[in-house]
Amino acid sequence: MADIARLAGVSKATVSRALNRSPLVNEETRTRILELASSLKYTINIGAQNLRLKQNRTIGVVVPYDSATRQHLSDPFFLSMLGSLADALTERGFDMLLSRVDAEQLDAAAMPFDTGRVIGLILIGQWRHHDQLNQLAARHVPIVVWGAQLPQQLYTTVGGDNVSGGMLATEHLIAAGRRRIAFFGDIHLPEVAQRYSGYCNALAAHGLPLDPQLRVSVSFLPEGGDQAVREIERRAVPYDAAFACSDLLAMTAINTLRALGKQVPDDVAVVGYDDIELSTYFHPPLTTIRQPIRAAGQALVGALLAIIDSKPAGSLQLPTELIVRATSS
Amino acid sequence: MADIARLAGVSKATVSRALNRSPLVNEETRTRILELASSLKYTINIGAQNLRLKQNRTIGVVVPYDSATRQHLSDPFFLSMLGSLADALTERGFDMLLSRVDAEQLDAAAMPFDTGRVIGLILIGQWRHHDQLNQLAARHVPIVVWGAQLPQQLYTTVGGDNVSGGMLATEHLIAAGRRRIAFFGDIHLPEVAQRYSGYCNALAAHGLPLDPQLRVSVSFLPEGGDQAVREIERRAVPYDAAFACSDLLAMTAINTLRALGKQVPDDVAVVGYDDIELSTYFHPPLTTIRQPIRAAGQALVGALLAIIDSKPAGSLQLPTELIVRATSS
Repeated sequence: MADIARLAGVSKATVSRALNRSPLVNEETRTRILELASSLKYTINIGAQNLRLKQNRTIGVVVPYDSATRQHLSDPFFLSMLGSLADALTERGFDMLLSRVDAEQLDAAAMPFDTGRVIGLILIGQWRHHDQLNQLAARHVPIVVWGAQLPQQLYTTVGGDNVSGGMLATEHLIAAGRRRIAFFGDIHLPEVAQRYSGYCNALAAHGLPLDPQLRVSVSFLPEGGDQAVREIERRAVPYDAAFACSDLLAMTAINTLRALGKQVPDDVAVVGYDDIELSTYFHPPLTTIRQPIRAAGQALVGALLAIIDSKPAGSLQLPTELIVRATSS
Repeated sequence: MADIARLAGVSKATVSRALNRSPLVNEETRTRILELASSLKYTINIGAQNLRLKQNRTIGVVVPYDSATRQHLSDPFFLSMLGSLADALTERGFDMLLSRVDAEQLDAAAMPFDTGRVIGLILIGQWRHHDQLNQLAARHVPIVVWGAQLPQQLYTTVGGDNVSGGMLATEHLIAAGRRRIAFFGDIHLPEVAQRYSGYCNALAAHGLPLDPQLRVSVSFLPEGGDQAVREIERRAVPYDAAFACSDLLAMTAINTLRALGKQVPDDVAVVGYDDIELSTYFHPPLTTIRQPIRAAGQALVGALLAIIDSKPAGSLQLPTELIVRATSS
């Protein structure tokens, strides 16, 4: 208050009267003092705004975590995606603000944008909250999501073609003479649901029955592959192949199959998903569906920068590819 | 200027005269106007300062890149370290600002701190610029570095015990009856230099000669393992084992040895370094030196937060451990 008084050239008493709207202070002086007071806050906003609009070259990358499992950030696919995004952002002179949010509260992902720390957001995975992401888009938060393209989607997605990925994997196993193909994955996750519908399409196309007993719902955690194999053994349904929705699930499943004395691929053929780096080194080298991770980083950043420049950015589906190695034939 | 005039209760002409130090403006008024002018800038600084000291819960993580190779951020050890840091920061309610700098200009790593975007920095690796890191510490940039503890070090490091790591690997190969042990790594990097001195110590302790022909200098890029094997074959020096300074180098070396018709471990025993996740899945499963990556993230964040709270944080060396699998015996 002393500052305001000195700067306005009046007494502190006058300032306090003015702030309290006292009639003892004439109109002109009161206006000056109120403006002066607010102008000090105002200039801070100006500063923040400049920071946000001009100097800020930071993009937010949000990797949700499953609050149930409190999953560590160790999934090789997520980590490769982070590396790919970091490379794509560095090439364009941007920094990356990495934050994690509870997968049940994806809307919390907007905070770094709402507080002016980032100019846009890239979110890895839709999890179960398409609705929350639509709300973010509805209030014009610049956001691009790695994931599946869904009906009534207001936000932009970049993702792999999950339906054809699921079909490629299943067609390949059918071509290898397999008829009882297990599916390992949680179809409540949009990308997994699309891979499953590709699996169903392929079975139908070859007149093979769809046996719900062959679908085992497991998370993407490393132990998921082990759980899936033990569960299907518990169900005692015959199976001669497994399509796992990540390479990590496929690898941990194969290790458990080996532990149970089953030969891969002779007794059970296995196809994974992602084509993470270690799938080539795995023994036996893993047949999988390749997701174009490097292209994904470039596409996510490109789409987000377009949105930030208020240019149209349609959702993008990147092609997936069957990589045949030794676990399926 | 109109604003200043209105707020000071004087004419624009008076403001411009005051700013130009004109004698036509009396002392008191000039002082008021100059203060008012500067106070507008000043309040922005206040705003930035509050942002930095109070609201800012962001830590900068810097992963340098080798400008020569323009290396992608795909090294599994770096990626696991990022995941471990992200987990440690998330648990404590901090976000992570990831940036990359040219490994020849590590001092550029301070920019996110100097611009008030982060309250401290974690840098992965010293590369060749101990000197630049000392300069950062000398000007009180809160920074913790993952790497080797070096003489005349002003900054705090957290790292694995590289000397005993190198000794453990070499002692193990000697115990397995190997006498001509190749070393794959670039000893211009402090951590590699310490692993090499551990290697030298172990040889000396067993009265084995140190043959410089057995040391091949390669980068940490995946192709390094292939290059190292081809180089030592070109030199035509006999060797019955190889100690590679990363698991990735060890794996690519083993694949090249296999391609050249050499059996691992029968013809050449191999030990890697890091114990990245895929080393257990590798075929044959890789003998390696484990770096405690999860503990590393916690230790790096803990040390940095101590420094930010102006508490003493000495450099920390985490124990390394020999993990014997199938590539060495």
